[in-house]
Amino acid sequence: MNARHVFGENLRRLRQERGLTQETLAFEAGLHRNYIGGIERGERNVALDNIVKLAATLGVEVAALFEGVELGHSGTEE
Amino acid sequence: MNARHVFGENLRRLRQERGLTQETLAFEAGLHRNYIGGIERGERNVALDNIVKLAATLGVEVAALFEGVELGHSGTEE
Repeated sequence: MNARHVFGENLRRLRQERGLTQETLAFEAGLHRNYIGGIERGERNVALDNIVKLAATLGVEVAALFEGVELGHSGTEE
Repeated sequence: MNARHVFGENLRRLRQERGLTQETLAFEAGLHRNYIGGIERGERNVALDNIVKLAATLGVEVAALFEGVELGHSGTEE
């Protein structure tokens, strides 16, 4: 599972644990609901500013959104 | 200092601690040297895929690049 998918699943889990709908999270973070859906499906290459907005809105460290993302070592992948 | 600037300073510090030039880091991460310079100056809204590449190349957790980024709480800023 690639980084975008792991990030998206973390976002969905953290959102649901807080009882937030995609729409509520989107509103509170100042983003569009469809954009949140795309992130959760692993379709979006979310950038720094929005990563920070999402972490702040969920009340988590940025690290929580990257939990389980495989870093590996550059150049050593098969 | 905003999130992009804090991220950029973390990147510069971690790179220098490893004795890497911008050019070497860029080459190893598969990015352009000018792009690395822009990130370190806080000018770039780096996205997820490249954040992961940079962390992997530096051999750090993604959290290290976000260290000191102010999350605050959505909607409560002055």
